[in-house]
Amino acid sequence: MRLRIDLAYDGGAYYGWARQPDLPTVQGEIEDALHTVLRVPAGSQEEPLRLTVAGRTDTGVHAAGQICHLDMSEVTLEACRGHMDLPATQALMNRLNHRLPADIRILDIQEAPAGFNARFSALERTYVYRISDGSMPVDPRLRSFVLSLDDRLDIDLMNQAAAMIPGLHDFGSFSTPNPGGTTIREVKLAYWSRIGERSLVGEGSGVSAENQQAGHFTVPSMESGLLCFTIVADAFAHNMVRSLVKACVVIGRHRKSLDWFAQKLEVPLREGSTGPIEARGLTLEHVAYPPDDQLAVRSEAIRAKRTL
Amino acid sequence: MRLRIDLAYDGGAYYGWARQPDLPTVQGEIEDALHTVLRVPAGSQEEPLRLTVAGRTDTGVHAAGQICHLDMSEVTLEACRGHMDLPATQALMNRLNHRLPADIRILDIQEAPAGFNARFSALERTYVYRISDGSMPVDPRLRSFVLSLDDRLDIDLMNQAAAMIPGLHDFGSFSTPNPGGTTIREVKLAYWSRIGERSLVGEGSGVSAENQQAGHFTVPSMESGLLCFTIVADAFAHNMVRSLVKACVVIGRHRKSLDWFAQKLEVPLREGSTGPIEARGLTLEHVAYPPDDQLAVRSEAIRAKRTL
Repeated sequence: MRLRIDLAYDGGAYYGWARQPDLPTVQGEIEDALHTVLRVPAGSQEEPLRLTVAGRTDTGVHAAGQICHLDMSEVTLEACRGHMDLPATQALMNRLNHRLPADIRILDIQEAPAGFNARFSALERTYVYRISDGSMPVDPRLRSFVLSLDDRLDIDLMNQAAAMIPGLHDFGSFSTPNPGGTTIREVKLAYWSRIGERSLVGEGSGVSAENQQAGHFTVPSMESGLLCFTIVADAFAHNMVRSLVKACVVIGRHRKSLDWFAQKLEVPLREGSTGPIEARGLTLEHVAYPPDDQLAVRSEAIRAKRTL
Repeated sequence: MRLRIDLAYDGGAYYGWARQPDLPTVQGEIEDALHTVLRVPAGSQEEPLRLTVAGRTDTGVHAAGQICHLDMSEVTLEACRGHMDLPATQALMNRLNHRLPADIRILDIQEAPAGFNARFSALERTYVYRISDGSMPVDPRLRSFVLSLDDRLDIDLMNQAAAMIPGLHDFGSFSTPNPGGTTIREVKLAYWSRIGERSLVGEGSGVSAENQQAGHFTVPSMESGLLCFTIVADAFAHNMVRSLVKACVVIGRHRKSLDWFAQKLEVPLREGSTGPIEARGLTLEHVAYPPDDQLAVRSEAIRAKRTL
């Protein structure tokens, strides 16, 4: 049987998603926890307990809505229920969260629908990059998830650059190709926004406006004032989001022109000026899948495309 | 001369605000950094560089809008400007932020108006306590600032308790008195709210609704779904916010009644059932001061009241 696992992590302590020998990785932590809570010896041939992930995040990148899948026998899953009066998937989630460090949380575990593949069935991925610019120091509570920059960035120019990104492009200037892989991707949405100064307690909270304020200080939402880049694509090539963010930031500092950016998009050529920005500000927010009856078709189409 | 310093910190690594020998504290970190960047030897009699703070936060409590003051000579302040073409207060802020660990950030330094005392001039303090309740695991990005509870809490009951809090009360059941001090405080506002599922990119961000969505996933604000307690008072007795939160949570779990709470408010008596909840969810959000021409009057009135 195949399980779909939804999870989130603070990537600050990890060398990315993908398992590496002798280095802490998110995949490594979860697979080790799976072997422990399911009592399957490491290296088992019958139950390898290997995760397949939607977005292979790099060192230091975070995830709020990561998805992976896991194949295992029903017997192994049932055994983990123990004395608990819960569905086995819920029991597994509780045991994993008990075992895992607090910077990795399993949000949901469900039996996957037929044809589901966390990587190849995905329709689109959404990433957000958060920046605190200008002279205002970053809120220390968000320091691990927000890049702090001294310069005030020109958001209008950055949005003119962002507007060139959507569509089918070869992002070769802005990504590191995998051997034999393509850097052609279809970006569906890309924009910068300044998060307004919003109150923590907003509409729909059940608290009347008079009670909230009445002349007292209005507590702001933690993300107030941040500069955020939202990007949605079918998939991303390696380093692609961070390289596009870096290019926009350089433009927002008036160090490079929109023409330079247009040319880099047109002529895919990796070079020093188009390298990635720091990982800290990047979070994989969401992965979208098609309706259940289109999962298998999607998966086959993507497999064929990526191996062209 | 007197400086007003606005600052924020993640209190997770500190034994509270107040300096203690051989333990990391926020005051200790900043005073040590001041001695270094101002080149004043530790233990100096002429320039003791001691901070006076508005809210003496406990071990593990955070601050988004803490205020303190510092007396020093103009000569010492001027010397820290060095080659920088900046106001001396700005130069001091930059040097401090360069020196301090990333979990403490100086947000602003200004010459204080006449009569300003960070502690005694304050009109009111605002705290927020954040909880992630129910079976949904806490967002790992917020795990240091949010208390995670398995039970789903009854916010209506909790708000009935909170509605009893405002007014002048002896909070002796809900605080640890200082020797010779009073536990009488005036609470101005206290309520629970469920933070709605809000999108990160909201109105006023300069991004059109079509561009934001167009059928794509809407990235939520990080604090979406949290249960938050907001409380404003002239001042707080030791452990008071955390003890009131604990009492509300116990009521929200249907373990204690509203009558029990009413009685504890009426008869101030410290006991085990009214102890404090964990520090992790608590943040000092704001300290309000009167207009400049009323600072000294306020300060004298409060000094007199607290030493009655």
